[in-house]
Amino acid sequence: MGKVVTLGEIMLRLSTETGIRLSGAHHFQAHYGGGEANVGISLANFAHEVYFASKVPDNALGHAVKRHLNSYGVSTKHLLFGGDRLGTYYMEAGVGERAASIIYDRAYSSFAEMTTLEWDMETLLEEVDILHLSGITPALSKSWKALVMRCIQIAKNHEVKISFDINYRGKLWSQKEAGETIRQILPYVDFCSAGKMDALYLLGMKEYKGNEDELIDYYQQMQKAYPNIQLFYSTKRTVHSASAHTLVGTLWMNEQYYESCVHVMDPIVDRVGGGDAFSAGILHGILEEKEAQTIVEFATAASALKHTVHGDCSPFSVEEIESFMAAGSGKIDR
Amino acid sequence: MGKVVTLGEIMLRLSTETGIRLSGAHHFQAHYGGGEANVGISLANFAHEVYFASKVPDNALGHAVKRHLNSYGVSTKHLLFGGDRLGTYYMEAGVGERAASIIYDRAYSSFAEMTTLEWDMETLLEEVDILHLSGITPALSKSWKALVMRCIQIAKNHEVKISFDINYRGKLWSQKEAGETIRQILPYVDFCSAGKMDALYLLGMKEYKGNEDELIDYYQQMQKAYPNIQLFYSTKRTVHSASAHTLVGTLWMNEQYYESCVHVMDPIVDRVGGGDAFSAGILHGILEEKEAQTIVEFATAASALKHTVHGDCSPFSVEEIESFMAAGSGKIDR
Amino acid sequence: MGKVVTLGEIMLRLSTETGIRLSGAHHFQAHYGGGEANVGISLANFAHEVYFASKVPDNALGHAVKRHLNSYGVSTKHLLFGGDRLGTYYMEAGVGERAASIIYDRAYSSFAEMTTLEWDMETLLEEVDILHLSGITPALSKSWKALVMRCIQIAKNHEVKISFDINYRGKLWSQKEAGETIRQILPYVDFCSAGKMDALYLLGMKEYKGNEDELIDYYQQMQKAYPNIQLFYSTKRTVHSASAHTLVGTLWMNEQYYESCVHVMDPIVDRVGGGDAFSAGILHGILEEKEAQTIVEFATAASALKHTVHGDCSPFSVEEIESFMAAGSGKIDR
Amino acid sequence: MGKVVTLGEIMLRLSTETGIRLSGAHHFQAHYGGGEANVGISLANFAHEVYFASKVPDNALGHAVKRHLNSYGVSTKHLLFGGDRLGTYYMEAGVGERAASIIYDRAYSSFAEMTTLEWDMETLLEEVDILHLSGITPALSKSWKALVMRCIQIAKNHEVKISFDINYRGKLWSQKEAGETIRQILPYVDFCSAGKMDALYLLGMKEYKGNEDELIDYYQQMQKAYPNIQLFYSTKRTVHSASAHTLVGTLWMNEQYYESCVHVMDPIVDRVGGGDAFSAGILHGILEEKEAQTIVEFATAASALKHTVHGDCSPFSVEEIESFMAAGSGKIDR
Amino acid sequence: MGKVVTLGEIMLRLSTETGIRLSGAHHFQAHYGGGEANVGISLANFAHEVYFASKVPDNALGHAVKRHLNSYGVSTKHLLFGGDRLGTYYMEAGVGERAASIIYDRAYSSFAEMTTLEWDMETLLEEVDILHLSGITPALSKSWKALVMRCIQIAKNHEVKISFDINYRGKLWSQKEAGETIRQILPYVDFCSAGKMDALYLLGMKEYKGNEDELIDYYQQMQKAYPNIQLFYSTKRTVHSASAHTLVGTLWMNEQYYESCVHVMDPIVDRVGGGDAFSAGILHGILEEKEAQTIVEFATAASALKHTVHGDCSPFSVEEIESFMAAGSGKIDR
Amino acid sequence: MGKVVTLGEIMLRLSTETGIRLSGAHHFQAHYGGGEANVGISLANFAHEVYFASKVPDNALGHAVKRHLNSYGVSTKHLLFGGDRLGTYYMEAGVGERAASIIYDRAYSSFAEMTTLEWDMETLLEEVDILHLSGITPALSKSWKALVMRCIQIAKNHEVKISFDINYRGKLWSQKEAGETIRQILPYVDFCSAGKMDALYLLGMKEYKGNEDELIDYYQQMQKAYPNIQLFYSTKRTVHSASAHTLVGTLWMNEQYYESCVHVMDPIVDRVGGGDAFSAGILHGILEEKEAQTIVEFATAASALKHTVHGDCSPFSVEEIESFMAAGSGKIDR
Repeated sequence: MGKVVTLGEIMLRLSTETGIRLSGAHHFQAHYGGGEANVGISLANFAHEVYFASKVPDNALGHAVKRHLNSYGVSTKHLLFGGDRLGTYYMEAGVGERAASIIYDRAYSSFAEMTTLEWDMETLLEEVDILHLSGITPALSKSWKALVMRCIQIAKNHEVKISFDINYRGKLWSQKEAGETIRQILPYVDFCSAGKMDALYLLGMKEYKGNEDELIDYYQQMQKAYPNIQLFYSTKRTVHSASAHTLVGTLWMNEQYYESCVHVMDPIVDRVGGGDAFSAGILHGILEEKEAQTIVEFATAASALKHTVHGDCSPFSVEEIESFMAAGSGKIDR
Repeated sequence: MGKVVTLGEIMLRLSTETGIRLSGAHHFQAHYGGGEANVGISLANFAHEVYFASKVPDNALGHAVKRHLNSYGVSTKHLLFGGDRLGTYYMEAGVGERAASIIYDRAYSSFAEMTTLEWDMETLLEEVDILHLSGITPALSKSWKALVMRCIQIAKNHEVKISFDINYRGKLWSQKEAGETIRQILPYVDFCSAGKMDALYLLGMKEYKGNEDELIDYYQQMQKAYPNIQLFYSTKRTVHSASAHTLVGTLWMNEQYYESCVHVMDPIVDRVGGGDAFSAGILHGILEEKEAQTIVEFATAASALKHTVHGDCSPFSVEEIESFMAAGSGKIDR
Repeated sequence: MGKVVTLGEIMLRLSTETGIRLSGAHHFQAHYGGGEANVGISLANFAHEVYFASKVPDNALGHAVKRHLNSYGVSTKHLLFGGDRLGTYYMEAGVGERAASIIYDRAYSSFAEMTTLEWDMETLLEEVDILHLSGITPALSKSWKALVMRCIQIAKNHEVKISFDINYRGKLWSQKEAGETIRQILPYVDFCSAGKMDALYLLGMKEYKGNEDELIDYYQQMQKAYPNIQLFYSTKRTVHSASAHTLVGTLWMNEQYYESCVHVMDPIVDRVGGGDAFSAGILHGILEEKEAQTIVEFATAASALKHTVHGDCSPFSVEEIESFMAAGSGKIDR
Repeated sequence: MGKVVTLGEIMLRLSTETGIRLSGAHHFQAHYGGGEANVGISLANFAHEVYFASKVPDNALGHAVKRHLNSYGVSTKHLLFGGDRLGTYYMEAGVGERAASIIYDRAYSSFAEMTTLEWDMETLLEEVDILHLSGITPALSKSWKALVMRCIQIAKNHEVKISFDINYRGKLWSQKEAGETIRQILPYVDFCSAGKMDALYLLGMKEYKGNEDELIDYYQQMQKAYPNIQLFYSTKRTVHSASAHTLVGTLWMNEQYYESCVHVMDPIVDRVGGGDAFSAGILHGILEEKEAQTIVEFATAASALKHTVHGDCSPFSVEEIESFMAAGSGKIDR
Repeated sequence: MGKVVTLGEIMLRLSTETGIRLSGAHHFQAHYGGGEANVGISLANFAHEVYFASKVPDNALGHAVKRHLNSYGVSTKHLLFGGDRLGTYYMEAGVGERAASIIYDRAYSSFAEMTTLEWDMETLLEEVDILHLSGITPALSKSWKALVMRCIQIAKNHEVKISFDINYRGKLWSQKEAGETIRQILPYVDFCSAGKMDALYLLGMKEYKGNEDELIDYYQQMQKAYPNIQLFYSTKRTVHSASAHTLVGTLWMNEQYYESCVHVMDPIVDRVGGGDAFSAGILHGILEEKEAQTIVEFATAASALKHTVHGDCSPFSVEEIESFMAAGSGKIDR
Repeated sequence: MGKVVTLGEIMLRLSTETGIRLSGAHHFQAHYGGGEANVGISLANFAHEVYFASKVPDNALGHAVKRHLNSYGVSTKHLLFGGDRLGTYYMEAGVGERAASIIYDRAYSSFAEMTTLEWDMETLLEEVDILHLSGITPALSKSWKALVMRCIQIAKNHEVKISFDINYRGKLWSQKEAGETIRQILPYVDFCSAGKMDALYLLGMKEYKGNEDELIDYYQQMQKAYPNIQLFYSTKRTVHSASAHTLVGTLWMNEQYYESCVHVMDPIVDRVGGGDAFSAGILHGILEEKEAQTIVEFATAASALKHTVHGDCSPFSVEEIESFMAAGSGKIDR
């Protein structure tokens, strides 16, 4: 089992039930989540030793975050309490042709307002196998751009592997600004979640034409640009409607390209955190030193299962995911 | 922006949740709606000045109707309070192969029992662009047959355009009785919602054979019979199951036939009011003097969106519908 | 109308809502059901005189069972009160690719612990047309293996027809043990629910190759082995996902094979009790002396409808099922 | 055990949850009830043989009524199906100083519109010990005034005892009209639920001054006026707020006056049906030939318990009520 | 009927159900409210012409605010759309000995960030009878301190009466800061909600000893200090527990002191907005030129009723309040 | 901060909502709890290092137990997974005069069936300050009687203090059997929760007459009998109804008797776990070496707060309890 630190923001999601609009909602479902927290919870469910580093206000919402993480066995030893508020966002559930709709209310959060690495970095990174970060954190503020770089450098000094999920959000920064920052980060990264869009717009690669499995080409280009990166991964998601997607996992590892089988997700219960469940599946495979094809199949199955439950995080164990992979779609055992 | 009056009955719908039968229900969802009220709400959401003329009892249910309409910005200046009861109906939600099932309990309602036009008709119709009525109102009573005709004549005197939705309901009157009444009304109508069934059974046209897009032919026949009508419109709905329909909007305007793209509605949250959302989309296009193809695409998109929310009325604004038309099915913007 | 006794265990099912896992559930839906009780309720809904014979604890849960059965008109004159507990099971609702997951907690129940036929068997079986049993009962204990045989013999002495649903559950006994017991029972059976799996593994028949409609062959073999059995029936279910199945009913009667039309069940609300609704449909056809094709169409429609409602039992009447068969999928009548 | 017929109207109650007003409700709780049905259910829970005679529409709501009654073991052999609608009423739950608020919508119901006694009266009253009626039924229509008298006369011919609950409702008829009708009925009554208000305003007795336990005096006067009546009973209810009442049961029997101990009901869950539970308790005591003090204590305890559960009817058994009487307020047994 | 403008912030309240803590909540009830908005809604329910002036973000939450106000007939002609966010706060429901607990998250809201009076003040104040403001608005920012003064001066120039609710909140500003600001405002105020605490700590009056009805003395002192103020009012609330309060309204008018009868509020459904309902009751009395005692009784009854419903605003009409005053606690009319 | 091990059974509680009976419930609330687990959670909320030792099945319900404990920071390092089932019990919520009603279904649970101390006792008890046990565990089986003694002896060898809550349950064993076992345990106990009933019936002491504060006398007798016990504690609970109790904490320490102030708990949300919250408060005081009066006030406040939240365990921190003690009943801070 590995020792992993994930560092990032965690927010309160307030969402409506299917068929109810935000402007007509009389109550909201409450879920706590964030990419790095979600990855951490999945890895804890896979029996790794996981620490989530973040900062939340010292009030009932901050305590709810702690309870949420602890309930899945994630250590909150490095969860700081302080600052003014927990970032929130409102989500109107999508269904059929109508996509989900999101209102962000995350500015001025305890985490976004951090200006120094308030953790004891020595303790935080001691004997850690992987530090997982995402492109959302440097997008939060100028301070965080610098802090993320500083954090990565300290981790490198402790021989910690860097896992980085580009996770570009157009509502947080421009492609230009994102590109500049991410290009500074990638030379230190070991495992990278990146897709075609990231390659084209953030990393400035050129569009490849003429091949169906076009991801191979982008992965090759990225590998050339960043030979330090051991593997690239992302999912290919076909959106038929808000309620039905197909999902294929892709992995570039050891200079080869791998794809999972196709998962038909219909109906989707909650797609938030689907990508994080995939990332956690990949990192689990790395920590367990599995074969590439095994890794990508497991990660994609983990992601597909996530879409069948409410909430941001995936509550499934390794045994449950493997038994799901063996059973076939919708088969019940009585 | 236009000024519109819609006049008709509004009822309380008591419906079960998916998978629950009426005979086993321990609670009911409450929604207020009626074709003309629903059209009014949509048009108010599209920023027109809308008045809903009706009559409801002077009790908490009547007041709930007022609050419902006001919440969407529909004026209830012409909503009368009096009479004995609010019409109700019970709806067992359909799902998959099992269709929804309805029990009407609308007899003796405050509106149905009206015997005179209790409104100050001068004030009601002053500077109004469109008066929207439906075939449900004359079906309610002998009095209402006469009152509808009277109402249309006064409107005509005020140079108000008449919008009429045939909306035939077999549980209210026979095809024969409906046909007689509607044929008296149509010579005064400017905009008419009518489909193939209306043409055949109500208006006594003959079935056309040999063409896929058979609606053209019916529209042509109707146009010939009622040259006063500026446009005809209706939707072509393919019912795959109670949970999945496809929808195409059709429009006959300026002696030409227009069809919208196909909307795949799967799953359907609530189909009640889908036709009213379409009608409102058409009337909006007329008031805004849009092109025919734009009108029918907008109206069909409005109708498709309605199917994704609970309740009888469509809560979507022009901006939301146009952004939906631009985005494609189920695409989320983060 | 016929007089029917169904005898078996009834349990409390505690299930989660879609998208909620057992380990994260804060409340459970409560439903009471069991194969024989479900068949009984359907037959009572079809206006037959039905008695359910079982044993439940003399506490609020036992009384809830009584109220459940009485509410559908099933007589509980032969429902015994005593013993220690009501068997329960927990069900995590499946959705999309993720199947439902079940935890049984049924050991030591009032019914399973029975060691004698505590009913007055004379009264129980007097003028009864059909006694319906299933393979679950003899699987519960050594005592019940003997009691089931004894029960069947008394019934035969009273010229009661025996309906038997093999209903093999791998969590209760091995195929070997089940096979030995069931082969002792079948020589006394008149109507038998059995599928390909039962033929192969329980009854030791050999696999047939080369024909699409392979059930014919198994039914022929079973008929040869047990010429006393008047008819065999089962459904062919194709599981696309936990949310979407197709269903075809099959029937072997008068040495001929019959199949129903195909029912597409999408989405499925609750599949528990789908087989029992089918069995009840078949037994209704027998009691009413319908044609074979009519019987299998009715039974399959009854089963398809059951999948659209929550709970273990089918609440549909003969009129509702026939009207459903006439209407076509999802068509609403207004 | 006795054999009892209760005859009257049953309605659908649509009520809000505490703190929600009718005009702002998005869903309603559904309960079925009516005085005579409630009395019948209690008596069935007390193990008597009970038949409820009424008429409901042949639709899902009528079938729900049947399931409701059957679930408590009340026979619906004499429940007629037909007519147009089920009477309904809306109830805004009261709390604290704010009383509950009710909107009746019961006109034109299947029962109210009856003009003949559609039951086979011979079968209905055969070997019946008690026929229970209330003053609500003759208030429904002129027809019902005559039918009630006719019904009572037939019952008398069959030596059936008449139980009559005056149950005056000012929203249904005037005190004058009620008084005239009820004075015709009382000479045939054996057991009568009547309070001070009934004595004063309906029966024209004069107000008695100078005694705290003033009910004695009214009972004495009533006894003198109607010597045929074996016993009178009613509750003295002190309304502190909508959430807290105290309740004392009173009984006039064998020319003596009896009172129960005081029940403090705080908080009240649902007061609808509290009087019916009391009546059923009295009738049970009569059927079981209990002592007067025992009867009134039991009936008042039954009524007090009713106030602790949602719904119109009392679900408590004799054992539960007696164990409640023995335990003292709020004591739990672990 | 009067014409009233209320101006202030409106927020989204996210609250838990009774017995659920914020840190363990899986969903939140959503209510929109703010002192000035609540006063406005009550006055609209009392049939006055009411405008609410505020600023909310142009997103679904802002639109929900609009729908909320419109549903009660408050005009949102002067509701501005813009800025970044809607202020929110989280409320853990109190019960029994445990008080409610609140987390404010209102900084940086669209309203709080305003730096100019963005309304067309001429239109806003034209022919307005009363402008209602509270001490919360100047507490929001330095800008708002100035804007409130400016607003009051413009109103005075238009001969609009100023209603001011001191409404001191220790979490927003210190007593010293509040006192300085409020002492600048009071010379322009016509109707003032102020209690003993306001007199002592904000206005620097000295504590009076020796009289039970001590409020008289404070009102006298305040009247001397601010002879321009026509009336002072506040409630005396005795908190027995979070679930039970007693409430007495007080009013100083025409140099005399008035008190309402005592309202026992037990249980309390939702105390938020109780003070605003009282203020609205007072303003209604002024607009209608009622007697002092009538005013304070009506206002206190309005406030007591508010405590019986969920949400920030009082949905009661004049008729409902008067009928409540006439009926007595918890009496139901059937 | 101290290090504490609590050892005992944890069960799933399935309970109804207020006003709903078990026999009519359509869903159940799910809570996990047990005396020793509840004490452990409270102590973890008070920032002590807590381990819960027990055994649960290796299925979703067992995993839910783990998540529940972890969410409050209790270590599940010593939670064993295995055996057949999780003990359950059903609870019908009490209200007003009607007490809660419980059906136990706990036999054959994974914990009850244990026959050896399966933990590594060295690791379990290493450097532990307090081991907390209750009288429920030896009541479960003959094996557990022996295992509890063995466990206590090993703890004593490790110089671990023994906390013992007598917690007599008449449904598990007789007073005679309990007395014999408990008298064997008490000579090893350091901190003992025991009340008058325990003194009289289990420990064979004689009833004391003539003194209001009779608990002093029993504590004195118990102290004489078991001079090894450092302190005795229990609550005096007056049950006014299921919804309203008063609570006083009592403590015998250093040969003196202490009582807390009176807490009025009205309404009670959930009384389950009230005693455990009190015990945890006492143990916290001991670990923190507080004064006796401080200890009993804190413990009683903790218990009173527990009654205001749903669920078996108390979620309150030291800060929250102390702030509650300072504030007074129902006072809110804005």
